[in-house]
Amino acid sequence: MTAKIIDGKVIAADLRARVAEEVARVKRDHNLVPGLAVVLVGNDPASEVYVRSKHTQTQAAGMASFEHKLPADVSQADLLAVVAKLNRDPSVHGILVQLPLPKGLNTEAVINAIDPAKDVDGLHPNNAGRLAGGFEALSPCTPLGCIILTKSVHPSLEGMNAVVIGRSNLVGRPLVQLLLNENATVTIAHSRSRDLPGIVKQADLVYAAVGRPEMVRGDWLKPGATVIDIGINRIPKDDGKTRLVGDIAYQEALAVAGAVTPVPGGVGQMTVACLLVNTLRAACAIAGLPKPTV
Amino acid sequence: MTAKIIDGKVIAADLRARVAEEVARVKRDHNLVPGLAVVLVGNDPASEVYVRSKHTQTQAAGMASFEHKLPADVSQADLLAVVAKLNRDPSVHGILVQLPLPKGLNTEAVINAIDPAKDVDGLHPNNAGRLAGGFEALSPCTPLGCIILTKSVHPSLEGMNAVVIGRSNLVGRPLVQLLLNENATVTIAHSRSRDLPGIVKQADLVYAAVGRPEMVRGDWLKPGATVIDIGINRIPKDDGKTRLVGDIAYQEALAVAGAVTPVPGGVGQMTVACLLVNTLRAACAIAGLPKPTV
Repeated sequence: MTAKIIDGKVIAADLRARVAEEVARVKRDHNLVPGLAVVLVGNDPASEVYVRSKHTQTQAAGMASFEHKLPADVSQADLLAVVAKLNRDPSVHGILVQLPLPKGLNTEAVINAIDPAKDVDGLHPNNAGRLAGGFEALSPCTPLGCIILTKSVHPSLEGMNAVVIGRSNLVGRPLVQLLLNENATVTIAHSRSRDLPGIVKQADLVYAAVGRPEMVRGDWLKPGATVIDIGINRIPKDDGKTRLVGDIAYQEALAVAGAVTPVPGGVGQMTVACLLVNTLRAACAIAGLPKPTV
Repeated sequence: MTAKIIDGKVIAADLRARVAEEVARVKRDHNLVPGLAVVLVGNDPASEVYVRSKHTQTQAAGMASFEHKLPADVSQADLLAVVAKLNRDPSVHGILVQLPLPKGLNTEAVINAIDPAKDVDGLHPNNAGRLAGGFEALSPCTPLGCIILTKSVHPSLEGMNAVVIGRSNLVGRPLVQLLLNENATVTIAHSRSRDLPGIVKQADLVYAAVGRPEMVRGDWLKPGATVIDIGINRIPKDDGKTRLVGDIAYQEALAVAGAVTPVPGGVGQMTVACLLVNTLRAACAIAGLPKPTV
């Protein structure tokens, strides 16, 4: 058996196109232009790449994109003042503070200062709490992308056994909530779990978010399982260069699973697309419009 | 094999005694008297019984107890004004609005109006979010009681397989978070789960919170498992009277499990004791004192 490869690039492009359609519709029917503000502190090269990509994709979807670049030595008070200004700005519907912040800044206080209605990264405790309570909430983008990729294979996840490996705030924990909302039976495994291969073997849906290169082996998988790889690890190659691998042994998984996401080209493609979804949803909610169809 | 019976009455009494000791200590050393305010709207007889029990136990632990009884037809605005006043009152460290509220009142708005620092029921989205994120939070009392009962049998839950049946906001979902904090591997099952007996069979720790009389049968259990029954169901007896049973077939479980909580006399005993724990913790946190030892 050779697994279907879940093509994150194609699915993300389709999602962005549907966001763009909805943006055009709310612009036309309600004179509403969703706006995303990204705050970048310092000049970490990786963060600059991400922010540029967000900017390009936001504009391509027909939304307004605002960038706020602050020096690495900005004070906590000045950073909070920028967030407060964006909270008040009616043209801004989504606020994203690019993480990690330089040392000396209190990340938790900055996140907590964002208006939960504009918290498109889904990191404010209010959104995490609403999500954990099964209420409508802005959810973190990577888990949202995982659900969309899974549903490209299984339109309904009801009653399926899902295993999430990893329990981070950004991925594992909110992913569990989203899977529960889809009526899956969910197991959360982690570094302290016993017999991880045995746990994974039970699962129709496997999500790996641990940051350990190729940790999940092919023989751990139930034949036909859908496997979503959230890890991105850079490992050395024989020629002295490096390559990216996920948390799942991809070649082995291809032989056993029913469907697998590649790394790169899988989950990573979805994150910014889901940020656009969240910004559109936030804009509609703030304007009192019905939830968009995407 | 006959299972150990986990005696909620004894464990709750011990917990209340330890709370009373800590209350005496903060009173002596810091001149701090933890205070719990309970708001009761209308005159539902069951709610009145609960509120009276909370009042008695709060006073017995050496804390201040405040009761606010409002008529069933109180306006939303007047109820919110009472909550706002309690939020400002420095002698009040815990606020509990007895649920359910009479029809016509917006429960969610009332819960959201409680200062999260005084939310001893652990229902504010901010606390749910902090709990879901793995941060220090006031947790709902019933799940807290379940963890204490489990640890009376297993001091460490690390790496154990736990199954939680039921995903309510009040019990199932926060219990999952508390079990994760104890480093258990956690599976959340529910009405849409397939092969529930097979899922339960894997578990070292079984938590049933579904509200279906004796649904979990003895032959579903892994021999030696610890079984915590959160259900309280009233069913008819042959003589026309009624009796209370849990969600677990108790007599069958006794023959298979390693340890079982009875109904009544198990989890139900713990809830008010944990409310006292939360009030003590809230009082210490608000006063800037270290977390109490209970």
